[in-house]
Amino acid sequence: MSRPATAAVIVIGNEILSGRTKDANLSYIAAKLGEAGIRVMEARVVPDVEAAIVEAVNTCRGRYGYVFTTGGIGPTHDDITARCIAAAFGVPFGRNEEAERRLRGYYDPDQVNEARLSMADMPLGVELIDNPVSIAPGFRLENVYVLPGVPKILQAMVDGLVGSLEGGTPIASRALTVYAPEGEMAAMLAGVQARFPTLDLGSYPFFRQGRFGTTLVCRGADTLAVAQAHAALVEEATRMGVESAVFDAATARDDALPPGPIRP
Amino acid sequence: MSRPATAAVIVIGNEILSGRTKDANLSYIAAKLGEAGIRVMEARVVPDVEAAIVEAVNTCRGRYGYVFTTGGIGPTHDDITARCIAAAFGVPFGRNEEAERRLRGYYDPDQVNEARLSMADMPLGVELIDNPVSIAPGFRLENVYVLPGVPKILQAMVDGLVGSLEGGTPIASRALTVYAPEGEMAAMLAGVQARFPTLDLGSYPFFRQGRFGTTLVCRGADTLAVAQAHAALVEEATRMGVESAVFDAATARDDALPPGPIRP
Repeated sequence: MSRPATAAVIVIGNEILSGRTKDANLSYIAAKLGEAGIRVMEARVVPDVEAAIVEAVNTCRGRYGYVFTTGGIGPTHDDITARCIAAAFGVPFGRNEEAERRLRGYYDPDQVNEARLSMADMPLGVELIDNPVSIAPGFRLENVYVLPGVPKILQAMVDGLVGSLEGGTPIASRALTVYAPEGEMAAMLAGVQARFPTLDLGSYPFFRQGRFGTTLVCRGADTLAVAQAHAALVEEATRMGVESAVFDAATARDDALPPGPIRP
Repeated sequence: MSRPATAAVIVIGNEILSGRTKDANLSYIAAKLGEAGIRVMEARVVPDVEAAIVEAVNTCRGRYGYVFTTGGIGPTHDDITARCIAAAFGVPFGRNEEAERRLRGYYDPDQVNEARLSMADMPLGVELIDNPVSIAPGFRLENVYVLPGVPKILQAMVDGLVGSLEGGTPIASRALTVYAPEGEMAAMLAGVQARFPTLDLGSYPFFRQGRFGTTLVCRGADTLAVAQAHAALVEEATRMGVESAVFDAATARDDALPPGPIRP
């Protein structure tokens, strides 16, 4: 079995750094890549500034197997990602004929304008990434995949891409939710971690449906070890008399905190 | 008027990079700092790995006025942020007496254990950051502010901190929502951007309440220029016959996309 492949995600856009917009793309990309055995090792959020984009792309493409950028490939003047990718690779930037053909085929003739056609301006030598939602393609240059920021369009494009990526061993993950604070589970969890040093055991506190609890997560490429570690957590929690549940704490929302003390 | 101060946010945690958990802290910190005239220039998401945390902290603390880290300061074995901050600064790491005093005063004696007391292990020479929710304090070392990952606790601590930071000129922001695709607004928007070169004009497409549209945002330290640019956008949109609205597209959620074509 091969080792897990690695990736970085670069989120491009002033609106994320100003707090105006919450990024929704990192978690989607990371989960999809994880299923394919590709592990996101780092993510960066950078502004719509050429030097910042070029530095992030060049650092990450040298370090990781794959780089995915999101944002900045629309039709307006603040969409500078494609130009920055050309600058990062030191290749010419200009109209991609196939991308222009797709755009002209999609818009009515009186809807075609320079702004929309500018979505076909790309670095030389790219491979287009199909956009089944709004046609304007993304592109790949070497190990850098350039995707849009609008979550519904990005998701469709990632779904189409992921089968073509060379993955490694998929990362297995199992979780146990217990109704006990982190501070009471810590010693037990550290003990199980010591028995399974190749796995990542994580602890995530929550308050939901009027109760405090902790989600204990085992993750790793070794499926058998993940199952064994999970079984050990269940056994230890049972021995401690802690109530556990299969409630999916990762996707549910936190409730408002109660007025009483919170003791992690 | 001083220039806006700068900051970076470092989000620490495997659960964010695996896609299991969506980060909710960057947008909160960025918005609060923006109100205080501090501009977040970059954010990084790093795993629970010492070398990655140390590199991100040391790069960012040299580049920006403030660095805020989130996550990894709880009681479990995967909470390694405090130790990594000590390593980044090259200072000793050990029990902070005041932090231990606060923890012992908060927990009942039979609830005190080594895991919980480990939340008082910090780099030498820190200033504590009050935690009004669950007591275990964060800390500041030079320009690095170390905060927890649980959003409700982080938010309370940021609210308490922000008044003590040295801000710059607050960033003013005004938005106009139009019911027209980005591709039809691009030329007009670029024209207004050219008239106000000190501002950031951004364009954010959406589909909501059954309609497509674009939110045009003017941001900058010059409040008068922001108001003038916003007025110019309203005037141009009116002249184009585009329907506009004060609907807050930034905080509303996208609806599911309709089956028909989407033409940005």
